[in-house]
Amino acid sequence: MLEPVGTDIKIGEGAKKMDKEEASRGHGDYVHDIENDGVEDESAGIGRYWSELSDKTNASTKPLLVKRTNTTSQIAIVGSNLFPIESLDYEIFDNQIFKQDWRSRTKVQILQYLTLKWGFAFLIGLGSGLVGFFNSFAVENIAGFKLILTISLMSESRYVEAFVAYAGVNICLAAAAAALCAFIAPAAAGSGIPEVKAYLNGVDAHTILAPSTLCVKIFGSILGVSAGFVVGKEGPMVHTGACIASLLGQGGSRKYGLTWNWLRYFKNDRDRRDMITCGAAAGVAAAFRAPVGGVLFALEEAASWWRSALLWRTFFTTAVVAIVSRVAIGFCSTGKCGLFGEGGLIMYEVSSASATYSATDILAVIILGIIAGILGSLYNYLVDKVVRTYSIINEKGAAFKISLVVIIAILTSSCYYFLPWIANCTPCPSDVTVSCPSLDNSGEYRRFQCPPGYYNDLASLFLNTNDDAIRNLFSPKITKEFHISSLFIYFVTIFFLGIITYGIAIPSGLFIPVILAGAGYGRLIGRLFEPITKLDRGLFALLGAASFLGGTMRMTVSICVILLELTNDLLLLPLVMLVLLVSKTVADNFNKGVYDQILKIKGLPYMEAHAEPYMRTLVTRDVLSGPLITFFGIEKVRDILHALTTTGHNGFPVIDEPPISDSPELCGLVLRSHLLVLLKEKIFSRDKNLVDQSTLQRISALDFGKAGSGKGIKVEDLDIEDEEMDLYVDLHPITNASPYTVIETMSLAKAAILFRQHGLRHMCVVPKSQGRPPIVGILTRHDFMPEHVLGLYPNIDSHKWQ
Amino acid sequence: MLEPVGTDIKIGEGAKKMDKEEASRGHGDYVHDIENDGVEDESAGIGRYWSELSDKTNASTKPLLVKRTNTTSQIAIVGSNLFPIESLDYEIFDNQIFKQDWRSRTKVQILQYLTLKWGFAFLIGLGSGLVGFFNSFAVENIAGFKLILTISLMSESRYVEAFVAYAGVNICLAAAAAALCAFIAPAAAGSGIPEVKAYLNGVDAHTILAPSTLCVKIFGSILGVSAGFVVGKEGPMVHTGACIASLLGQGGSRKYGLTWNWLRYFKNDRDRRDMITCGAAAGVAAAFRAPVGGVLFALEEAASWWRSALLWRTFFTTAVVAIVSRVAIGFCSTGKCGLFGEGGLIMYEVSSASATYSATDILAVIILGIIAGILGSLYNYLVDKVVRTYSIINEKGAAFKISLVVIIAILTSSCYYFLPWIANCTPCPSDVTVSCPSLDNSGEYRRFQCPPGYYNDLASLFLNTNDDAIRNLFSPKITKEFHISSLFIYFVTIFFLGIITYGIAIPSGLFIPVILAGAGYGRLIGRLFEPITKLDRGLFALLGAASFLGGTMRMTVSICVILLELTNDLLLLPLVMLVLLVSKTVADNFNKGVYDQILKIKGLPYMEAHAEPYMRTLVTRDVLSGPLITFFGIEKVRDILHALTTTGHNGFPVIDEPPISDSPELCGLVLRSHLLVLLKEKIFSRDKNLVDQSTLQRISALDFGKAGSGKGIKVEDLDIEDEEMDLYVDLHPITNASPYTVIETMSLAKAAILFRQHGLRHMCVVPKSQGRPPIVGILTRHDFMPEHVLGLYPNIDSHKWQ
Repeated sequence: MLEPVGTDIKIGEGAKKMDKEEASRGHGDYVHDIENDGVEDESAGIGRYWSELSDKTNASTKPLLVKRTNTTSQIAIVGSNLFPIESLDYEIFDNQIFKQDWRSRTKVQILQYLTLKWGFAFLIGLGSGLVGFFNSFAVENIAGFKLILTISLMSESRYVEAFVAYAGVNICLAAAAAALCAFIAPAAAGSGIPEVKAYLNGVDAHTILAPSTLCVKIFGSILGVSAGFVVGKEGPMVHTGACIASLLGQGGSRKYGLTWNWLRYFKNDRDRRDMITCGAAAGVAAAFRAPVGGVLFALEEAASWWRSALLWRTFFTTAVVAIVSRVAIGFCSTGKCGLFGEGGLIMYEVSSASATYSATDILAVIILGIIAGILGSLYNYLVDKVVRTYSIINEKGAAFKISLVVIIAILTSSCYYFLPWIANCTPCPSDVTVSCPSLDNSGEYRRFQCPPGYYNDLASLFLNTNDDAIRNLFSPKITKEFHISSLFIYFVTIFFLGIITYGIAIPSGLFIPVILAGAGYGRLIGRLFEPITKLDRGLFALLGAASFLGGTMRMTVSICVILLELTNDLLLLPLVMLVLLVSKTVADNFNKGVYDQILKIKGLPYMEAHAEPYMRTLVTRDVLSGPLITFFGIEKVRDILHALTTTGHNGFPVIDEPPISDSPELCGLVLRSHLLVLLKEKIFSRDKNLVDQSTLQRISALDFGKAGSGKGIKVEDLDIEDEEMDLYVDLHPITNASPYTVIETMSLAKAAILFRQHGLRHMCVVPKSQGRPPIVGILTRHDFMPEHVLGLYPNIDSHKWQ
Repeated sequence: MLEPVGTDIKIGEGAKKMDKEEASRGHGDYVHDIENDGVEDESAGIGRYWSELSDKTNASTKPLLVKRTNTTSQIAIVGSNLFPIESLDYEIFDNQIFKQDWRSRTKVQILQYLTLKWGFAFLIGLGSGLVGFFNSFAVENIAGFKLILTISLMSESRYVEAFVAYAGVNICLAAAAAALCAFIAPAAAGSGIPEVKAYLNGVDAHTILAPSTLCVKIFGSILGVSAGFVVGKEGPMVHTGACIASLLGQGGSRKYGLTWNWLRYFKNDRDRRDMITCGAAAGVAAAFRAPVGGVLFALEEAASWWRSALLWRTFFTTAVVAIVSRVAIGFCSTGKCGLFGEGGLIMYEVSSASATYSATDILAVIILGIIAGILGSLYNYLVDKVVRTYSIINEKGAAFKISLVVIIAILTSSCYYFLPWIANCTPCPSDVTVSCPSLDNSGEYRRFQCPPGYYNDLASLFLNTNDDAIRNLFSPKITKEFHISSLFIYFVTIFFLGIITYGIAIPSGLFIPVILAGAGYGRLIGRLFEPITKLDRGLFALLGAASFLGGTMRMTVSICVILLELTNDLLLLPLVMLVLLVSKTVADNFNKGVYDQILKIKGLPYMEAHAEPYMRTLVTRDVLSGPLITFFGIEKVRDILHALTTTGHNGFPVIDEPPISDSPELCGLVLRSHLLVLLKEKIFSRDKNLVDQSTLQRISALDFGKAGSGKGIKVEDLDIEDEEMDLYVDLHPITNASPYTVIETMSLAKAAILFRQHGLRHMCVVPKSQGRPPIVGILTRHDFMPEHVLGLYPNIDSHKWQ
């Protein structure tokens, strides 16, 4: 075991000035822990105290390769692009200035805050609801007209022109979506759910919630879905909801002139996180018209942190979404929205009146779940491989990105258009109420190449929007039948198209591909199991979709409720629950959920809810690394400036010494951003005195509000004169006097859970015994990452302690 | 501000022996903090170190009065009886023995643990499902035959005999239920949800989950509901589920010979808490046949602590319940269960095909919600008053309890029988498919005193089971109409009967009374609003029920989902959400949710999820009180025994001194229960030596497992010889080396949240500066209670800092 570093450093040795060259040579045994880091070492040196690896994530813009073993990436690969990331801090920052501000709040201000909080929840719901409506409206119209064009050309037997029209429109739409992503907001590519999940875990990738990302996400998603890709709008809607929330929470966007100064109460990570949680819920609620499902999705999948007050606010947000959706559907059902508005509020209504089942039915369902679990984990495995491959291609430039999208568009169009030719023609049902073959956009019976009076069942699946294909697959047997061969072709095609489509540079949700593949799979299994079960095949399709969702996303309650709200069939609940349990259990043996995998690929340092078992054998001081840099309660400007310029640390412990205190004691923690405010405002004094109230009047709590993502004062913005360098700064007013502390012998597992549950950015490690410096190190997110810990202790058996 | 106590106490002064008389005189300035406590002072004294109020909740059996202002009750008033309570500890106890045990676990043992965990979840689901079925089966049959008897007597115009029969059966059933509660398990009275909520928050009232409580709860609930009281089975079912879980988790019950020694892995509060969470969810799932609602109820209302793995297990449990319910209903639908089994799986199926609504409809719904919010908070207010009054009566003895129940039974029977005479007779509908007047148990049209061909609408509500009354109220207008006067009488009667029934000594759920009153209210409002709204009155009844639930229980998502699962009408979701939001918001302005109020009446020291605002102005050392008692790493038997007998503390800090360590340092925390094991096993040594491994072999981690509620070794069980008194005990193997520590200047608000989020029992307060003892105090649940803090600082403005 490594000897704990830093324990033999004496407090109060006085500053030993080092120039940058000297510092950059590293410091013997302290630096070995971070020497593989590639980013930090050259800036870690400062003479006096040594930082035991404080927060480094905001430190550099030097890109890292995806394959890094021994450290966390400071730069995440998001949407196949490199972005700086930053840790968030959900702690209540308990310094004098904030306390003063909090105490002086008037009733009116509190009321204003509460009103804004609920007003924002309302606006998030309203915004998400409207975007969801706009998205459906646009997709249904664009894709609908495309399909009508294709079908009408085909009905005149102009097959080549039909393909050219079909593929041409798809390629144009796809290229437009890709161009938006490539040139305007690369962060808008992909699902967005992993990034939102990371944000709510405490990792902010800067551009991920920017207004430009929001715009591209909305329009890119419409274009992408309309282009016939096997992608959904759900992930993008979650991301959109989060962006809307972030836009409001950051006090608008200065870049686009959308700012409101009266939003100062929300200038902290805590309130923003709550709003973004609401936004994620609103996104699901808008995408699926599933308000309760949205709340549960936010709770189960998106959020790392929860409290009942938030449940209540999230619920309000999704209620607003539900009402907006309802009004919009009501408005459109009268035909005012073009091709949109026929479906009603329930997206895939299932009405399987018979809901009795026997033991063999349950056996069939269990087998369905087991296979789906295996296929689901295979799906995740392949998505992982594909995304890794694509990110290499996408890194080469915008042209590569767009080309990749176009290639996949051509492939998708070809599959959709040419595969139905294999299928046999089926005579139209004798029921006169159905129009067969159907010519409208959401046709259940596509004639395709068949003679009049016949229809092509495979075309009815392929030549439709994704939503209509799902509706067809869920329809009960009496309405509609699909051949086994058609279902098999459909399932295999969608399964692989879904995999190769995720990772291209367009906004792409994963829900719909999984539901499509699952519904195809379920209906196929239903047909194959005909001899042993009497369950309806539409029901099998629904169970297949549920099992695939369980197998890939590994959610449970939220999927259940979302499916309930999508299909409005409560009687199926026990079977849906059963199949979800089986598929999730099977799939969990192979790999992790798809979003967790993508998080990992993107290099986002996500903290798991549980600690790794081997962490129970370590204590906190075992993972401390790097030099610890501390400040005195009253510190020289020069030393502060030196620490800020030569390190990337975001938090520094403050130590009081005699005469200010009787003995050396930990005063608290200061943040880089707060130090910068103090330096910028030049709250200096000539002597080592505590700052007086009149000087402090020059700054207010507002100045210390957390700036928007990636904004705020930088060291380069400071303008400190040479003669000011030897003045003093009193750090007490900005020192968080209640930092979270753990004792150095605290189990690392417990510390990790503490860190995660409180959404911390820095955690102070204090010594166990007397006569030592009052702080021995600072733990950050980085220090809990398995890569870091296993890097320090390569001989630990990471698998033994399950 | 008080000077922090204990800071000037020197470590290592050596033991100063005091006899009990001397100790009981108290210790000047240290005792004043707890002198209003009435329980602890006389046992708090020990010579050497002073406990700053450690865990006292297990200390005494002296009953406290209900009205106590300045301290938390050590004895809670549960079910109108006094029970000792104990804090639970959800921390991973990180001492050498447990670590050793954990490291030596084999793959087989891990598998065994996992299997058991899921096996238990299955058994909890199975048990709750079966109890739920048995409950419904018994209630429907008992109440059904009672109703058939009454109605057949009435149809022969034998009105007096009918009343005697009706009231007689009710009184007998009520008296039986009361006798069970009074003589066998007083803890079974009431809802049980507050107690389960308290348990999951970390407060264990000993008999609350005992097997006797389980039995009485099951049969008492059946008798109580059958007796026609305005009570539900839902609260009792939640309690039943928790009891089943507890029975499994505690390794069975030794008292009843139901023990399994291979359950040792579950001998800790953490695993038990998880199981009881599953049990609570299973209870709701079984009562309402609402599996998803059950999970959400556990999450939103019952549990104080959650993680996604638990969501998953809870979900599995309720899935089992759903399947059991389904099989049972399938079995009974063929008429094998007497009068039970006609309803189908959905308890109150609503089929309101039309679900469009206008702006005036929404206005009507909002008004409905506002009034319901006011009425809901009034309900809570009155329940509070009534329960307080009843608890005085109930304390006087079993005879008083039973009398009170009988009086309420007579009152209820009289209201139910005589009030319908006021109502007018309504002609039967001309529809020939309905049998009017209906003579069976679940009759929709009761003839009562009316001439043939007529029915009494009020009797159709009163002379039915609660479930059938709800079904009648939810039925759409076309099926059934109620007069405004009948609805008004019904609503007022049920509203007040519900209030005066809760608190009597029978198992009584609150959901059904609230749903009944709400449905009556909603339908009444629906009729009154006829001029402005076209919404169906059955729908109004549903919305009324939702709004009342929101107004009293203050849950949101779980009520939504439970109502969804009860009625199977998804299209109403936006309106249900709206009305819940309105009523909860209105009601929150007046008082707290009904379960929180009951928790408070019962004196259970529940920790809120948020800290009180004034706690932000205090730091942890401000609330430390009482003397701190610490042990050395190697301590004399006599001193340990003295500390154990003269205090009620459950945790003691252990301090190492030279030569064991270089300087005095905090080694960790030992628990009373672990000390007792060590003393019982006599792991002593003649010298101040660290214990050797061979001696330690005599004890295993199993011996240290947490005993069942209220069990475990007591000091009186020890048998220490006089000559053993001067031997030494090495406490290191049982010392938790990773206690949660906070620095003495940590904000109290932050410490409270830390304490609650990690489910702690003890939290060590460490000094900020050097040269002080390594620990200055221990915080327990007690120290965070507003009563305690405001007792110490009566001048703090507890309202200013909102």
